[in-house]
Order: sequence, then structure tokens, then C-alpha cells
Amino acid sequence: MTTIQDIADKMGVSKSTVSKALNDAPDISDALRKQVLETAVALGYTKLRRYKKPTKKVCIIIEKENMRYQEPHHFAYDILVGFRQMAEPAGFDVEIVPVDIKTQRNQHYDVFMLEHDYIGAFVVGFSLSDPWIQDFKISRTPAVLFDNYIVGNPSTAYVGIDNEEGMELAVSYLAGLGHRKIAYLSSSLGARVLQARHAAFLRSMHQHGLKTSPAAIGCSYYLSECMEKHLPRFLENGITAIICNQDTLASATLTQCQQLGFQIPDDISIIGFDDLPIAACTSPPLTTIRQDRLELGKSGFFALSSLLNHIPISTYLLHAQLIQRESTGKVPS
Amino acid sequence: MTTIQDIADKMGVSKSTVSKALNDAPDISDALRKQVLETAVALGYTKLRRYKKPTKKVCIIIEKENMRYQEPHHFAYDILVGFRQMAEPAGFDVEIVPVDIKTQRNQHYDVFMLEHDYIGAFVVGFSLSDPWIQDFKISRTPAVLFDNYIVGNPSTAYVGIDNEEGMELAVSYLAGLGHRKIAYLSSSLGARVLQARHAAFLRSMHQHGLKTSPAAIGCSYYLSECMEKHLPRFLENGITAIICNQDTLASATLTQCQQLGFQIPDDISIIGFDDLPIAACTSPPLTTIRQDRLELGKSGFFALSSLLNHIPISTYLLHAQLIQRESTGKVPS
Repeated sequence: MTTIQDIADKMGVSKSTVSKALNDAPDISDALRKQVLETAVALGYTKLRRYKKPTKKVCIIIEKENMRYQEPHHFAYDILVGFRQMAEPAGFDVEIVPVDIKTQRNQHYDVFMLEHDYIGAFVVGFSLSDPWIQDFKISRTPAVLFDNYIVGNPSTAYVGIDNEEGMELAVSYLAGLGHRKIAYLSSSLGARVLQARHAAFLRSMHQHGLKTSPAAIGCSYYLSECMEKHLPRFLENGITAIICNQDTLASATLTQCQQLGFQIPDDISIIGFDDLPIAACTSPPLTTIRQDRLELGKSGFFALSSLLNHIPISTYLLHAQLIQRESTGKVPS
Repeated sequence: MTTIQDIADKMGVSKSTVSKALNDAPDISDALRKQVLETAVALGYTKLRRYKKPTKKVCIIIEKENMRYQEPHHFAYDILVGFRQMAEPAGFDVEIVPVDIKTQRNQHYDVFMLEHDYIGAFVVGFSLSDPWIQDFKISRTPAVLFDNYIVGNPSTAYVGIDNEEGMELAVSYLAGLGHRKIAYLSSSLGARVLQARHAAFLRSMHQHGLKTSPAAIGCSYYLSECMEKHLPRFLENGITAIICNQDTLASATLTQCQQLGFQIPDDISIIGFDDLPIAACTSPPLTTIRQDRLELGKSGFFALSSLLNHIPISTYLLHAQLIQRESTGKVPS
């Protein structure tokens, strides 16, 4: 176990200087403090051993540009509630920490955690281009990643829903309604979970003996591109059903189809993903694949608590659930 | 909720006849009893509501032809210990139930569970050809499957280790030692987990820029075929390392290579999978991928307890771990 003396020896400074830097003393410069933290982490020192009583402080790190959580209708709101419902009665302080790419570039994840005295993190809303995704490959402070999977780091775990199952539920339901020409519309493939859903869609179609073609698959970060480029191509190709990788995209697709004169579900069936509050409020209401976000938040805490107790959990997935509403119907004859 | 009256109505018998059949009364014929149980299950009646106090009886169902568990050196021994270590203090009666294909063919899984008053099962050692694997697609009595995954049934969950990670650890370790020609030897692909390891091997090799060829991959149920058909082909093709999908196969491969005049690890590196007690006892001792079987058993109980409490857990995987011993070394120059 790395001691303060080890850090002092490595840096050629006194033990008390290291101690002061780790304990936020006012007479240590920011530059020296930063150097001490980075050296500490490099030597494997990932928990502050302060004079005061040990804290059980964990954080929920949210990618603030990708993920909204402030209001009940936002995707991450219930996830945060679920996590806190489990963590707080168990005696943990939970802090919500929105981060952007700049914060991630400035400081290694382990250094950030050490500096703020967090013993573990639940990480929500990260895409593959987020710098800390690279840090998680070698980090030592327990991190549970919602919808992200890191291979080979025992300090990380992946929590999410079973996307393979979710896509299979959507495809088999549409196949059962007689649909053969099913399109897939995705708001980019920049997140691991979106790549997983896309691959699962292709696999499920194949398993049901249904053909997929590039013309019936569209992925764009911009909503306008989904509506103006992919959707018209789907309609020209005679598709009768569209699976969207999120409810907000499905809601926009539904409206756009209606504006182009198509009846939902008589002409086109539409399925969303997530079961956000908006799904029940569209007209007609959206059939979708439910992610139980409260339970996902609870699972996030369970997985973090497992890692903190040295139980080597790698992956924890919840079942997906098909919610049938009125945006889907039998294939038009 | 299905009642005894519903079953009686469906069968055209009296309520007391149904009640007697469900409660094992001696004056009911076996044929009638079987019919009552099957009708009960068909109507969704999956828990006995007997007069006596409610039991918390669960079982560990073991495929007795595939899986040994009686002795500490058997694969499933620690898994069973781990499960019981968690279940018994929580007030559950745990029964070990070895089954064969005949039992599975004679009775649907749900009927079997109802008949024996088990509220849930941990299912160990099943291969894809086991009849109950089909039952699990539609079963309603909670079942946690060790190393098997059923898509779309919320009454089932999958527990195991992260095979993708395990294979990546093996391949990246060998690649780091300079090996380029790595073979894969597997004792059949009849189990889901063996298929997963095989696919993960191919993926990892590809990710490390290493070529795979059919000549360097061998899968046979019979050990003799692995030794006499696949291994000589590997050696003729100049491979320098072999990843085996189980320790017992790795142990046999090690001995066979030595008998053919190859030094381990100077000429050939060998990696096993599982970290069974045998792995530390071969000469030289085997490098292998560890499955923490005690923790897997505990995870099995956690997942079953989650399903019993209506937490929709789908997948629970533990991290794999590379155990470096002496059967691996630098690529021969």
C-alpha cells in the first residue's frame, strides 16, 4: 500500500508537504497540489487517508452535454433517484457532478476522484469520444458505467438494460404483425449502447429471416438529417415499420410521417426505445421498449457497492420490456 | 390469479379433487395428479398454495451427465457451496437435484417445480441440447441459468463470468509475449458458453491484428480427437501458443505436447480456462483464466433472490482474471 512517505520520496519533498497537499491546506500552491495528486495516483494511492473520520462519499458523474437529468421527464432523472434511494439509507453521501470534455481533458479520472475524496462513481451519459472512457481502461477507483462497457478493468462494471433482448422484442413483435420491411433509425452510433442496439437489430432481423438493406437503415446525429435524408428514403422504399433507437427520435418520426400524409399505425408502424414520459403523450401514443430507469439507478448502486466490497462484478443487465401502445399495428394489406 | 376452482372448472372435476392432487393426497391416482399439475401450469398456477406454512424451497438443478459437483476438485462444487452460503442464512431450504435428459423429456420445467414445491431454481451444467433449455423460453417459475442465456423471458436470468474479457486477457497476454500464431482448442461447441468463448477468441485475435485460420482452430467433443486430429495439425502449422477452453483439456494438451517432444513453455505456451484445482498441479503449472466459482454461486443466489422479488435482472457477469503460472513464456525465437 502506497504511503504518504512514498509520495514524498518520489517527489523529493517532505512528508508534511504531501500531507498538506492531500488535505487541502491553504499554504500549498495549486501547482504543487496538482503535482502531488498526480504522483499519488501514479503510485496507486487512490483513497485519501485523512485525519478526520472516514467518509463514504460517492458521486454520480454526468456528461452534461449528452445527458439531461434535472426534470422528471429527462432520461437520467429516475436513474439518479434510484441510485440515491439505495445509497443514502446505506450511509453514503451522494454528490451529482456534471462534467464536460474540458474537465475530463484537464484531469485524469483517478486524480479527480482522489482530489474530491470520492471512493467510487456512477458514470452516466458518456459517449465513446469522452476522454475519461480511455481513463476507465486503466483506472483504479471503482466506477460503474451506465451503458458503457470496459473490457479487462476489474475496477469498472457495466450496468444497463439487455439491448439484445429489447431489439429482439421489437423485431419479433413487428414480425408477428406481418411486417417484413422494417427500417432502423438511429441518432448516431457514437455511444456504445447505440452501437449495441444497431447490431442487435441486424441480428434479430436475420434470426427472423427478414432482410435488411442499407436503404432501410439511417444513423445521423442531427434530427434534421434523420427527417430529411433517411425518412424519405425509407418511405420511397416501401417500408411499413420503423424502429427508432430513442423515444424522442420516434416522436419526431411519428409527427413527420403524419405531416407527409401517412397514417400511424395504418400505413406505418413506429416503435421507440426507453419509454420516456413523452412516449405515452404522443398522438397516437408510442409503442416502445421500456428501460426501468429507477431500477437501473438502484442496480448502479448495487454494482458500485459490490466493487467497493471487492466483488468482481463486470456486467449487470436488466430485462427490457415491450410496452404496446397505439403507434403499431398490422402490416397494411 | 389462477385458483383451484379455475383448474377444477377447466378439467371438469371437483375443487376437492384438485386440492387433493396438489397436496399429494394418497387417494388420487398418479395419472390424475399429473393431469392436474399440467393443467395448473397451463393456467399459470406456478406456486402451491398449501395449507401448511409457506416454504422457501429452492433447488439447484444439475445436468448430471455434463457436470460433476460431488468432490472439491469438481467444477461445480464451489458454485454450490457459494449458493448455499448465501441462501441458507437467508432462510431458504436448498435441495440439490441432479437431472438427466429423460427427466426433462418427461415433465415440463414448470410442472416439475410445482410438483416439488420449489419457488425457484439455479440451473447448472445445461447444454443447448437439453430439453429444458426450450422450456426456459416460456417458463414462469424463476430460473437462474449458470452460463446459459435465454432472450426475452423475464423469469430467467443468466449468471457467469465475462467470457469476452477472459478471452481478451488470454490473447492480449500471449500477444504481449510476442506470439502471433495462436491456436484455439475447444471441447465441443454444444454449450452456449463454449460458443461465446470461441467467438470471443476470434474477436480478440482480430482486435490484436492477429490472423486466425481454420487450421489453427479445433473443436471436438472427444478428447482423443483433440489430441490426435487437431493438435498434430496445430504443430505442423507452426503455432507457438494454444488457448484451451477448459483446464482439463489444457492439462491433456500439455502432457501430449511433452510426449511429442515439445518443451512447455519454451516451444509451446498453453493457457487453460476455469482455474480448477488441477491447474496448479500440472507440470509446469497452467496459466489460466480464473472463474471465481464461490463468488459465481453467491451471484447465482443474488440473481434468483432478485427474480423472486420481481427485480427484472437479465444478466449478471463477474470479471475474469488471468492467473499467470509457468505454462506460458516468450515466443521462441
